[in-house]
Amino acid sequence: MYHSQFPIFLLLVVVGGGQAQTSVWTYTCLNEKHCQRVAVADLPGGGGVPLDVCKLNCNKAHGSLFPLPTGQVTLGPNTTPFYPGYVTLSGYDAYPIAVRELFRAAAGIFTGHLNKMRPPGGENPIYWNRVDIRATASDNSTSMLTLGTDESYTLALTVSADGKTVTADISAVTFFGARHGLETLSQLIAYDEDLDVLQIVNTANIVDKPVYLYRGLGLDTSRNFFSLDSIKKVIDGLSYNKMNIFHWLISNSQSFPMEVAGRPQFTAYGAYSKNKIYSLANMREIVAYAKPRGVKIVPEFNGPSHAGFGWEWGPSAGMGNLVVCLNADPWYDYCLEPPCGQLNIVNNYVYELLGEIYTSMLGIFDNDLFHMGGDEVHMNCYNTTKEITDWMAENGTSTDMDGFVSLLGSFTSKAHDKLVAASSNKDITGILWTSELTHREYISQYLDPTKYAIQIWTETFHADTPAMINDGYRVIFSNYDALYLDCGLSAWVGTGHTWCSPYKEWQLIYDHSPHFIYANATNSTAADEALADGRLLGGEAVLWVEQADDQAYESRLWPRGAALGERLWSDPMTGWADAEHRMVTNRGRMVARGIRADQMQPEYCSMYQNKCYGPPPPGK
Amino acid sequence: MYHSQFPIFLLLVVVGGGQAQTSVWTYTCLNEKHCQRVAVADLPGGGGVPLDVCKLNCNKAHGSLFPLPTGQVTLGPNTTPFYPGYVTLSGYDAYPIAVRELFRAAAGIFTGHLNKMRPPGGENPIYWNRVDIRATASDNSTSMLTLGTDESYTLALTVSADGKTVTADISAVTFFGARHGLETLSQLIAYDEDLDVLQIVNTANIVDKPVYLYRGLGLDTSRNFFSLDSIKKVIDGLSYNKMNIFHWLISNSQSFPMEVAGRPQFTAYGAYSKNKIYSLANMREIVAYAKPRGVKIVPEFNGPSHAGFGWEWGPSAGMGNLVVCLNADPWYDYCLEPPCGQLNIVNNYVYELLGEIYTSMLGIFDNDLFHMGGDEVHMNCYNTTKEITDWMAENGTSTDMDGFVSLLGSFTSKAHDKLVAASSNKDITGILWTSELTHREYISQYLDPTKYAIQIWTETFHADTPAMINDGYRVIFSNYDALYLDCGLSAWVGTGHTWCSPYKEWQLIYDHSPHFIYANATNSTAADEALADGRLLGGEAVLWVEQADDQAYESRLWPRGAALGERLWSDPMTGWADAEHRMVTNRGRMVARGIRADQMQPEYCSMYQNKCYGPPPPGK
Repeated sequence: MYHSQFPIFLLLVVVGGGQAQTSVWTYTCLNEKHCQRVAVADLPGGGGVPLDVCKLNCNKAHGSLFPLPTGQVTLGPNTTPFYPGYVTLSGYDAYPIAVRELFRAAAGIFTGHLNKMRPPGGENPIYWNRVDIRATASDNSTSMLTLGTDESYTLALTVSADGKTVTADISAVTFFGARHGLETLSQLIAYDEDLDVLQIVNTANIVDKPVYLYRGLGLDTSRNFFSLDSIKKVIDGLSYNKMNIFHWLISNSQSFPMEVAGRPQFTAYGAYSKNKIYSLANMREIVAYAKPRGVKIVPEFNGPSHAGFGWEWGPSAGMGNLVVCLNADPWYDYCLEPPCGQLNIVNNYVYELLGEIYTSMLGIFDNDLFHMGGDEVHMNCYNTTKEITDWMAENGTSTDMDGFVSLLGSFTSKAHDKLVAASSNKDITGILWTSELTHREYISQYLDPTKYAIQIWTETFHADTPAMINDGYRVIFSNYDALYLDCGLSAWVGTGHTWCSPYKEWQLIYDHSPHFIYANATNSTAADEALADGRLLGGEAVLWVEQADDQAYESRLWPRGAALGERLWSDPMTGWADAEHRMVTNRGRMVARGIRADQMQPEYCSMYQNKCYGPPPPGK
Repeated sequence: MYHSQFPIFLLLVVVGGGQAQTSVWTYTCLNEKHCQRVAVADLPGGGGVPLDVCKLNCNKAHGSLFPLPTGQVTLGPNTTPFYPGYVTLSGYDAYPIAVRELFRAAAGIFTGHLNKMRPPGGENPIYWNRVDIRATASDNSTSMLTLGTDESYTLALTVSADGKTVTADISAVTFFGARHGLETLSQLIAYDEDLDVLQIVNTANIVDKPVYLYRGLGLDTSRNFFSLDSIKKVIDGLSYNKMNIFHWLISNSQSFPMEVAGRPQFTAYGAYSKNKIYSLANMREIVAYAKPRGVKIVPEFNGPSHAGFGWEWGPSAGMGNLVVCLNADPWYDYCLEPPCGQLNIVNNYVYELLGEIYTSMLGIFDNDLFHMGGDEVHMNCYNTTKEITDWMAENGTSTDMDGFVSLLGSFTSKAHDKLVAASSNKDITGILWTSELTHREYISQYLDPTKYAIQIWTETFHADTPAMINDGYRVIFSNYDALYLDCGLSAWVGTGHTWCSPYKEWQLIYDHSPHFIYANATNSTAADEALADGRLLGGEAVLWVEQADDQAYESRLWPRGAALGERLWSDPMTGWADAEHRMVTNRGRMVARGIRADQMQPEYCSMYQNKCYGPPPPGK
């Protein structure tokens, strides 16, 4: 580790106790593994660097890259100092406009990060080195991110013979791969507080691609409302961790904040207030914000449960209610949390409106992947609603589990037809939460695996999981006992803690490998196959927001979301302990970029990186 | 609930569907208890008001006041609309300057809150009512807040016969009581979003004083650094909840961020960086910020344990180390969390420096109450340090628990002598954490109850607690199993959760009554006596910050800290369930004033205030 581009006398003056270095401490790399604080006085010949610079390439296996690249990583020993204003980005100027604009936006984001690391101005003429970045995509024909998109990239860093120019070559198949390459490049740059300059690792070779296709976070914006700025920050965080899915659970029984084209009644009745609405323009803005950040929005419109306020205005004439059990008392007899509400699945007008909702949403979001919800339908709600039970009696539907599941199957099938019609894409995949309908004894009877993917929220080792993968379903792991980010806090109905306590610690999340979970129930060959053919789609951590809003959601999402990000991008054989310091560094990067991620440990643990291990303390 | 000061035709126009009211919903008061959303169409004659206005005086017993007043509360049924610019504050202009300036500062804070509720400008000439506030203190001779300060106040609100002037009369013994009265008054005012005006309850009588003298929050600023702005926000939060103590745990073994007059070495060696130092001026600024907010700073300088970095520079010549076991390996053999470090209690120079530290601190902080720490001294550290064991052998001190405690007793006594000398106040109280020294078998032998108060971090029903209260010690309850705000998150050494898991839910904190705990071990008469004579000083929730920093501390502190605030101010016979809606309203007020308090429940639960109760849901 050495600054290569300034005279040695300056090094001595600066690091040896000159004006810019007022601390008695500096950092060195121990055993090509850990950075450690040392007294400047103990390094009479110099050689110490600021901690963030030390971490760039002290550990030769991965530096402070996060998530871990899955291919070759070679990091040179030297860094080159530079100012953000001496960076150029090129390579994509001749691409079709849609892709070119994505590259331009990503370049702007990249330089924005550099400017946050060191604001412009006050440059020292000693450092006039250039960083020339060339980013290319061999397929520049599409600007849509799908689960089939190639997200691989390679990154090569070289320094010119005169030491004055660092060249970064990012080669990818698609823009989305190239964007990840820029993210990796940004992690090979750190602020040198001693010299007030940026430092970039000046020789490197990295080959990288993700293990899982679906690497997501889910955010519920119905129990409490989130501003557009908050949603954008979630997307920012995803992009920093090479996560590619923002699952937006827009609406629920508590509120209906989503504008539906031509149906102002939904928000007039269902929004918490007129300031708590996502207009069509707002949602388009989110989609446009996410794309250059490599993030796809998967919107969810849940049904037939999780529907309540917003539906109480209709219908226009004598067709029965649109929702039943709305805000029923006592709630626990008719739903799993207040307020209750389920779509009236025997009212055909409901399906018409559902078609309008889908059409409105698919005018904004991608038309290949759509979350249909489907969880937590309450049998007793339907079985105590006369117009439903009348219909069931007429149609010979039993009021037991078989009958209930047939109702769900029928609803899902009709809803999927509406979805296909709305999407103009017969191959649109509807994602469903696990439910009674996805139980082993029912799933194949009702759900075609080419039409549906399953998001698993049941416990990690539930027997339905390997069964559905064996049956050919594509699955997304969101097991509540590992990936629910709301668990462990104060109860909000009743006393004690929330139902899914305890808090899901980052170590548990980090070690939550879909491949391991499926291999554990079958064998590793079967798991390899399921990964290769896309049945193991990936995973998603979910923040339910009964107890979160704009004020305090970032510390729930981060850095725990990043732990899942590395698991899904890299799926390393190593566990959380090997990731700890990079998790901390990565958290620091996120904070520097404006995300209020939670602190993981005392700053001391970064000063002495091999000291904070051992058994848990026996007392306070 | 009714707007009293505008023509009835306007009411109909506005609430009945006019321009200002675009929602289909409004609120009414049910059974003088709960506010509930109703359709505007269901109130053809008007009468609905915005939720925040409804909550002001719907519940006649307490409105949305938080904490609950302990004396009489009478709230009238009407509100008067006004603009912040039509508020005057008077009554204190002739007071001595120190007290007058506190009143002026408090008045500025009060009007600042009103301006945050409704920014100036755009006023409608229909609402020209005045709010005249008179705030007085019968003893205006002192500006120092002590545990003996009378914090009582009365608040009377009346409206003139013409309805155009609301008068608020706040009478107190001291400024600190009057300040609480202003806080209460601010809770009788809400923003009326329909009319874009503030509404004030225009007749009320409130008599109030706190049950406990010491109502605090503790924040550690050593494991991770907190900015001055963050500390000020903590003080803001305390003031909103009529809590009067900010226990500032400034330094620890991880870092020494506190400037010591004349000893720059402490921060040069001990601060995490030159930007992470509390200068003498910074600390004075915090004291000055806290005082008009009714908050006393209780600084802690912990010893002989919890000392490490910052002490490694000395001594100047051959007097042995200042700290022993510094950063020792493996840490768990020498301390309870890394890095280890304890003061070298046989080095007299340590006591000299301790005297300098106390003198420096007491030049800034009040000289009546000082936290000396004293917890978690590790016997094995001293028993494996040759200069300590040599001294013990020479002085006939055994290496067993008796000898260890005698070392602690000797250190504490010498340190207290230094404290008295530094404070110029022989009556200064040193607060000590519970430790081996405070065990039943040792406490009376070493600690004079007139010199020391005990902060109890041991478990709630530890037998030492009633024993020390019986023996005459003043105690502060900070039981880790109820009042530690850092519990329940990811472990930072090792796997799983932090040692004091689970998370301490607000309901548990709310119900944590020192009086109840002591009465449970004795009887309620004994507890009444201990409260009356000041042995039950109060309580403090503590945020240890191994896993918190500026980014995410507010959601740990609030609203849980407020739950303790009401417990200590009011100590109601009722439990958390009766406080839930006021907790939520109070949280909303804190957010409106800029504190990022955690969300407690879906916004829905405020729309239908009697609906979110019942058993915990059986599934997600």
